[in-house]
Amino acid sequence: MSRLPLPIQNLIDEFSRLPGIGPKTAERLVFYLLKNSQDQLNQFADRVKNLRAQITVCQNCQNYSLKSPCEICSDPSRQKDIICIVSRPVDVVAIEKTGEYKGLYHILGGAINPIEGISPENLKIKQLENRLNSSNGQIKEIIIATNSDMEGETTALYLAKLFKPLNINITRLGRGLPVGADVEYADEVTLAYALKGRRQM
Amino acid sequence: MSRLPLPIQNLIDEFSRLPGIGPKTAERLVFYLLKNSQDQLNQFADRVKNLRAQITVCQNCQNYSLKSPCEICSDPSRQKDIICIVSRPVDVVAIEKTGEYKGLYHILGGAINPIEGISPENLKIKQLENRLNSSNGQIKEIIIATNSDMEGETTALYLAKLFKPLNINITRLGRGLPVGADVEYADEVTLAYALKGRRQM
Repeated sequence: MSRLPLPIQNLIDEFSRLPGIGPKTAERLVFYLLKNSQDQLNQFADRVKNLRAQITVCQNCQNYSLKSPCEICSDPSRQKDIICIVSRPVDVVAIEKTGEYKGLYHILGGAINPIEGISPENLKIKQLENRLNSSNGQIKEIIIATNSDMEGETTALYLAKLFKPLNINITRLGRGLPVGADVEYADEVTLAYALKGRRQM
Repeated sequence: MSRLPLPIQNLIDEFSRLPGIGPKTAERLVFYLLKNSQDQLNQFADRVKNLRAQITVCQNCQNYSLKSPCEICSDPSRQKDIICIVSRPVDVVAIEKTGEYKGLYHILGGAINPIEGISPENLKIKQLENRLNSSNGQIKEIIIATNSDMEGETTALYLAKLFKPLNINITRLGRGLPVGADVEYADEVTLAYALKGRRQM
């Protein structure tokens, strides 16, 4: 029999619903929050409640945004002739952090995964096709930046095949050793890619 | 430059404040919540906001409760002559789950930890002393159920010494192999305790 008061148990249940948060972790988080001031709790609550209130989905790139078209799509300083295709909005955040990319994005909303029943129709591929078709040849390159796991690779191959007739330069993120990695501990597939992709010093 | 819309970034910041939640995990949780319905978000928010609204601290055992004295302290079926001393409210939950203990509790609110500046005065030890002193000999035993780490042991020793003059039976949780453990992988200290605490079969 659990003797936790209902308001505490209720919030533990909420946290337990989140991905990667087990009941023990949820308990720890809630007991931490119990020591917060009511002002802090109110702020947290308001931010949960308002998470989606102002958020829309960009009609072009499908990213979460405060407006549509989003900040990136409507930024006149961004290159309009290159689209980077990613699975999730967090991938955009990661790529933006590099400061190396100045083009546009397209968020698929996942990757092809037959086991979990995610087929191309469940992704924002139709919207991408429309974007490319209506660009009147303005798009010169698409970078497929899906993950290098099975699902990401499948999605990349599917897209490469689909867009081949469009005569656009289709590229995939380079592969090799991650920065800071030991050659000794690299898996053979990564090492083979690193060899093939070697550069003049 | 992070391109996340403010309502998303704000909630990521809230989650990042929680213990054990890094910015990457916080991002994952918030993007999961973005797919929730507004009703679900509202419920989560309400539960955060109301976490402490009805919660008080029991004047006897110092546990979180809907009333004071708490459910356990005011339960006539519980043994009134034995107090189990724990560090945190979650420890009460763990012990209650065993169904083996029918006495009362006292929550210290932590353990003695000089490095983090937690001394006996920061714990609810004064309240425990008052409880024992005002019990008119009703308390026959105290079980010290602090963790078996350095801080828990220090706290246990401190309490044992403090309450020695009271002529109460002071016990500590039994130690030995956890259920399901391999002898081969047990550390020597645990194994030594298991040997000393061996039982007739």
